[in-house]
Amino acid sequence: MPTTPSARMIAHPAREEITLEAVLAALADPVRLRIVGDLAAGHTEMACVSFRLPVTKSTATHHFRVLREAGLIRQSYRGTSRMNALRRDDLEALFPGLLDTILAVARQHGIPPLQP
Amino acid sequence: MPTTPSARMIAHPAREEITLEAVLAALADPVRLRIVGDLAAGHTEMACVSFRLPVTKSTATHHFRVLREAGLIRQSYRGTSRMNALRRDDLEALFPGLLDTILAVARQHGIPPLQP
Repeated sequence: MPTTPSARMIAHPAREEITLEAVLAALADPVRLRIVGDLAAGHTEMACVSFRLPVTKSTATHHFRVLREAGLIRQSYRGTSRMNALRRDDLEALFPGLLDTILAVARQHGIPPLQP
Repeated sequence: MPTTPSARMIAHPAREEITLEAVLAALADPVRLRIVGDLAAGHTEMACVSFRLPVTKSTATHHFRVLREAGLIRQSYRGTSRMNALRRDDLEALFPGLLDTILAVARQHGIPPLQP
């Protein structure tokens, strides 16, 4: 079965390895909440560079890594761009209603998607 | 207006000082999830010593402090006992549905209240 080398280069937790504690910790940050809110707002896949984050590139890379390692996003390469997709199916299967509730509360408190 | 000295000894954030980020970070720990789950399960006020936590006394004190500083619980003295109450009204007003959703998901994943 062919797997693209780039896909194998980025490690992701399997669904059963995702924990509630890691997901909550990953979302306990306004920049990461904005990234996830943006992905949840209908963007199926976004390049890291297309997020207009108010942080340095290395800090942004750190935030994407925390989200990936917690199981919130799936990252893959398309050419030289690192793309990000929300793992909505995994999250909804594991934690029904959690993501929508947190994002709704975040929006209510002024943490809207970066690109509404 | 008389205020008991003990009540004034413990600092709490006002409702408007409570942030979503701090609440999520406070709940991103299984021991703290259990404490909050226990308080939510109908116990209006519980002494620190009445939680059967699987951690040392100093670690337990740390966890209660994190919950208090995040605005999840209110602590007060009754005699020499430090009592804990969930700030459900504040949390529900700020973050509708958040606490119940997180606790429901936690129970589903085997993080039940300590004293069901």
